[in-house]
Amino acid sequence: MQRYKCKVTYDGSQFSGYQVQPEKRTVQRDIELALQKIHKGEKVKISASGRTDAGVHAKGQIIHFDSSLQIPLEKWKVAINSLLPDDVAIIDVEKVASDFHARFDTTGKEYRYYVHLSKTRDPFKRSYAYHYPYPLDFISMKEAIKFFIGIHDFTSFCSARTEVEDRVREIKEIELIEEDGMLLFRFVGNGFLYNMVRIMVGTLLQVGSGDIEPYSIKEIIEKKDRKYAGKTAPPQGLYLWEVFY
Amino acid sequence: MQRYKCKVTYDGSQFSGYQVQPEKRTVQRDIELALQKIHKGEKVKISASGRTDAGVHAKGQIIHFDSSLQIPLEKWKVAINSLLPDDVAIIDVEKVASDFHARFDTTGKEYRYYVHLSKTRDPFKRSYAYHYPYPLDFISMKEAIKFFIGIHDFTSFCSARTEVEDRVREIKEIELIEEDGMLLFRFVGNGFLYNMVRIMVGTLLQVGSGDIEPYSIKEIIEKKDRKYAGKTAPPQGLYLWEVFY
Repeated sequence: MQRYKCKVTYDGSQFSGYQVQPEKRTVQRDIELALQKIHKGEKVKISASGRTDAGVHAKGQIIHFDSSLQIPLEKWKVAINSLLPDDVAIIDVEKVASDFHARFDTTGKEYRYYVHLSKTRDPFKRSYAYHYPYPLDFISMKEAIKFFIGIHDFTSFCSARTEVEDRVREIKEIELIEEDGMLLFRFVGNGFLYNMVRIMVGTLLQVGSGDIEPYSIKEIIEKKDRKYAGKTAPPQGLYLWEVFY
Repeated sequence: MQRYKCKVTYDGSQFSGYQVQPEKRTVQRDIELALQKIHKGEKVKISASGRTDAGVHAKGQIIHFDSSLQIPLEKWKVAINSLLPDDVAIIDVEKVASDFHARFDTTGKEYRYYVHLSKTRDPFKRSYAYHYPYPLDFISMKEAIKFFIGIHDFTSFCSARTEVEDRVREIKEIELIEEDGMLLFRFVGNGFLYNMVRIMVGTLLQVGSGDIEPYSIKEIIEKKDRKYAGKTAPPQGLYLWEVFY
């Protein structure tokens, strides 16, 4: 048996998220079906760095799987890609030690969130950015961002349906870049809770529009209650950009 | 009655082309349905600068229509867009003279064609560029382009199904730009025949891969027979970029 680590990119628009669900088209299902064909009908289970929701994209999702097939390393990518639909692709395959785990070994992740700021919507961006046609105060947003940086209990900034007990995470970096009518949020942290990036973005947009004061972020974090934070920004602006090990 | 000229953008991926066809989702149908709602059920016919095929995109398609409604000019765009699906949008509306015609008054058009040159396909480009993972000789392609420039009978470079009799067109400019793994062809001419840009691109890619000699373009044009030209490049790389009046 050899363990393989793969970097995967997908356009989440037509998927019901990453994780297998009965009767749904998911990224995990499509990759497992491709691997099953390569393994002549034998089921192959894959493990990812984490789930992504319906409509959320990935530029650098990481998965691993085990195989006893004697396929040269450089052939794996072409073999899997030839059996995958065109909205998901393997970018890179490498051999890893048998104790590598795509989920448990992560040391951090980068997510990006794109907001399209134009007054008029753009059909080409409809599935790839959140269209936000209202004015935003970037200075307030940058002020608010500072309160997220560091180690905090992010209970207020994760879905009320979050099952994990430990909601303490470290946000290492949040960058806000405006360019050509697009607003890009870069989030780097040691881990992110369910819907955490989307709730931080939704809240920051409410800071930018004056509904929430920048210094309120500190208080919202301290409340440890989802109901004090802002809206959950929609999925199509979100990209799992990179996973660190 | 007032005549209105509109600039329209659409992602052609989910449309069966521009022009109305029974039982099909087309751009013309969706815009006419939106206008019909604004006109309280009364049918409104629109005329475009020309058709685009299934999968072909537009950044600056031009249409016109007539209306007797007393709607302020600046409200038209918002009114129509609010009734259109999210893969088509009106960018601009202006009042024009009653004898303006979106098709008959055109003096030229710009089309762009995007080719994605990477070895590995990119899920985010699958509907927006032609994935071409083979090597290309740009010097040969630039050599070949020169033979297209000027006034020629383009019978060899239009679909055999083309119905118009006069196949003489002037190509004013063809630009080939390579940037970040994308190859962009810009075509400016006084008019283009059915499939003409896609056949020129398909032929130029065959020049780039060494199947066709650059100077053969001159001979292919002179044959006035579609069968001597190269393949028709697929629709998803093509954009109607601008229409000139």
